[in-house]
Amino acid sequence: MNDDKHKLSMHSGRLEALGDGIFSVAMTILVIELKLPSVKGNNWNDLLNALHQTWTEMLCYLISFIVLGIMWFGHRMMFEYITKTNRYFIFLGVLFYMVVCFVPFSTRFLAANTFKWYGVLLYGINLSLCNLTLYAQWQYGIHRPSLHAREIPGEIKKEAKKLFLLSPIVYSVAIAFSFYLPQVSIAIFIITPIVYLIPNIFDKYLP
Amino acid sequence: MNDDKHKLSMHSGRLEALGDGIFSVAMTILVIELKLPSVKGNNWNDLLNALHQTWTEMLCYLISFIVLGIMWFGHRMMFEYITKTNRYFIFLGVLFYMVVCFVPFSTRFLAANTFKWYGVLLYGINLSLCNLTLYAQWQYGIHRPSLHAREIPGEIKKEAKKLFLLSPIVYSVAIAFSFYLPQVSIAIFIITPIVYLIPNIFDKYLP
Amino acid sequence: MNDDKHKLSMHSGRLEALGDGIFSVAMTILVIELKLPSVKGNNWNDLLNALHQTWTEMLCYLISFIVLGIMWFGHRMMFEYITKTNRYFIFLGVLFYMVVCFVPFSTRFLAANTFKWYGVLLYGINLSLCNLTLYAQWQYGIHRPSLHAREIPGEIKKEAKKLFLLSPIVYSVAIAFSFYLPQVSIAIFIITPIVYLIPNIFDKYLP
Amino acid sequence: MNDDKHKLSMHSGRLEALGDGIFSVAMTILVIELKLPSVKGNNWNDLLNALHQTWTEMLCYLISFIVLGIMWFGHRMMFEYITKTNRYFIFLGVLFYMVVCFVPFSTRFLAANTFKWYGVLLYGINLSLCNLTLYAQWQYGIHRPSLHAREIPGEIKKEAKKLFLLSPIVYSVAIAFSFYLPQVSIAIFIITPIVYLIPNIFDKYLP
Repeated sequence: MNDDKHKLSMHSGRLEALGDGIFSVAMTILVIELKLPSVKGNNWNDLLNALHQTWTEMLCYLISFIVLGIMWFGHRMMFEYITKTNRYFIFLGVLFYMVVCFVPFSTRFLAANTFKWYGVLLYGINLSLCNLTLYAQWQYGIHRPSLHAREIPGEIKKEAKKLFLLSPIVYSVAIAFSFYLPQVSIAIFIITPIVYLIPNIFDKYLP
Repeated sequence: MNDDKHKLSMHSGRLEALGDGIFSVAMTILVIELKLPSVKGNNWNDLLNALHQTWTEMLCYLISFIVLGIMWFGHRMMFEYITKTNRYFIFLGVLFYMVVCFVPFSTRFLAANTFKWYGVLLYGINLSLCNLTLYAQWQYGIHRPSLHAREIPGEIKKEAKKLFLLSPIVYSVAIAFSFYLPQVSIAIFIITPIVYLIPNIFDKYLP
Repeated sequence: MNDDKHKLSMHSGRLEALGDGIFSVAMTILVIELKLPSVKGNNWNDLLNALHQTWTEMLCYLISFIVLGIMWFGHRMMFEYITKTNRYFIFLGVLFYMVVCFVPFSTRFLAANTFKWYGVLLYGINLSLCNLTLYAQWQYGIHRPSLHAREIPGEIKKEAKKLFLLSPIVYSVAIAFSFYLPQVSIAIFIITPIVYLIPNIFDKYLP
Repeated sequence: MNDDKHKLSMHSGRLEALGDGIFSVAMTILVIELKLPSVKGNNWNDLLNALHQTWTEMLCYLISFIVLGIMWFGHRMMFEYITKTNRYFIFLGVLFYMVVCFVPFSTRFLAANTFKWYGVLLYGINLSLCNLTLYAQWQYGIHRPSLHAREIPGEIKKEAKKLFLLSPIVYSVAIAFSFYLPQVSIAIFIITPIVYLIPNIFDKYLP
């Protein structure tokens, strides 16, 4: 019992700061990697042609930026409930950050192979792993009351589970389509983030 | 009513930290992308020639750095008044960060096409979108009293509106000039940031 | 004695923030430097071949990410005990950050020379220096009670010493093997991080 | 007088966070830009030759890392005394960050032209500007009591002035030498940071 006074608080602030850093570098890096459109003449058509040549690349980066924004939001929400950390929670956090760091890489791969099944495959797997590792961290967290800042309502747990698992399922469908209709896969990548913007049960608890 | 104890605070600190990260990467990246001047001989003239070849590029980066600094300041001011967040405020924040991340890209494009109308066009649109998305976030914020830290004086709202909308208007003029006198456009890009340094109503509330 | 009221607190928060920034850039940079696999055809075999060509590179980056994650954890733990700083503590911190910043460089070198003794040598030296500089900072810190936030239990000091010195010793063995059996060296680089995930005395003090 | 309740606190925390971000990116970027040594054979001599070819580059990066670390320390010290900000203090801060962001650029230039007068010239000017802009910010800050967290002892002001102006003076000497004996200039760049590690009056106020 005399260990009690040596108990550490291990506030989650540092882990959040590392995450904010990683997200901000990953999001900025997305745009850094865009190739400059090269305009061949001085007419509107020349500009439009140049932009047209980079539009799939541009689109992939826009999708990834929004997706990373949504993941950041989910990650940020988690720390409203969980404000202490331990070795395993941090380890799961590092895994999550690792797959987040791969997003600029798989985006670049998708941009180079936009309507190819393998482009869709690696991208879909990467985004799914982001959700699944964050879900693993959340699951570990909600089962360790010593990490909690407050009671976690039952409906929040249910809603979070639904939101975490939705995109891996949807992205599996995108991957399945990629072998025949990769355009549909890309459409799924565009639509899915929008679903996360629809009001849900969380909003009731937000200011 | 029993949801009240589950109400989350959603302090804006994390969103600000993400923004500080994004601004710091975007600002540092500007300079990373500068090409090294290559000095051909050992005289002053050789150095001056080498610097002369990179001066438009250098100038574009300096303008962008100062502009990003001013935007960071506006963004920072907003969080003196608004200290809580919700899904929509954060979504608008992510949009703002997205266009901020594009600034190194459109700066590179302007540096490669400094006195071309399309260089001015994309750069002007990008900077305008930065102001407009930040303005959208501010507008959303000031109409949600549950996000406020303090009362927002009426004159602050008026002044903020003026400052947010000034640069999109001025940059439209710059774009209009670009088709005939791109030098004037560049001059506008140089002068506009200076306007934001002139004392305004905000200063009265600052230490 | 009238200097007492001028005594500065020099909280470690800023040094930690600098470290979080450096770790987050270093970790994200690791992945940025990965070359895109180039898929030559449209079959599974083509994808597998392309991935196969990058697997050693991929592996080096994964190891480094996990190693940096573990070092970040060690660094983070230190600041549970030490929350004030002075010139020398900060100088040792800057040295630690310097060798951390070299990890993406030595990882790139290992990826280019995976089964060569010199690849293993530089990488092993770099990772060892990370541990040794952090250990130097910790040693300085624990001998300056004016920097402490709380009493540091004796068994924590012993365990920390063990954990700090373990990897330099193990990496020396990896370097020794590299001249004859570089595969064993790489295996040691893979296994060592796992050792740091085994529960240890620290866990008893964590939430 | 009814403006008093609308007075903003404008704590310096955000400006410090932006600075920590910029320093951490600039410091990490230094190392990213290092070229990999290419080892031609399998002997110790081959490794030593490869390292020998990159040693001046390596040296420039090491100097810059330590110099940036010392500047970060100076910057960090300033915020022990000044904890509130206004438009002009922030503007001077952005100028300081701008020249800090140029350090990886001028380091790259020095690495490409190590023993050339123009390499030394740009590098020396850049480092001097870092000190001078930070000094300008400090000077503005110490003359605005409304920004202070605590009384600033007279001897601190004197010592700070000395430390801020020392390196621009010394670097001017380095530049003067560069036209005849660039080796001396590089020696000055190596020695100067060490001077800042010598105990000074500040230490008396630190924990």
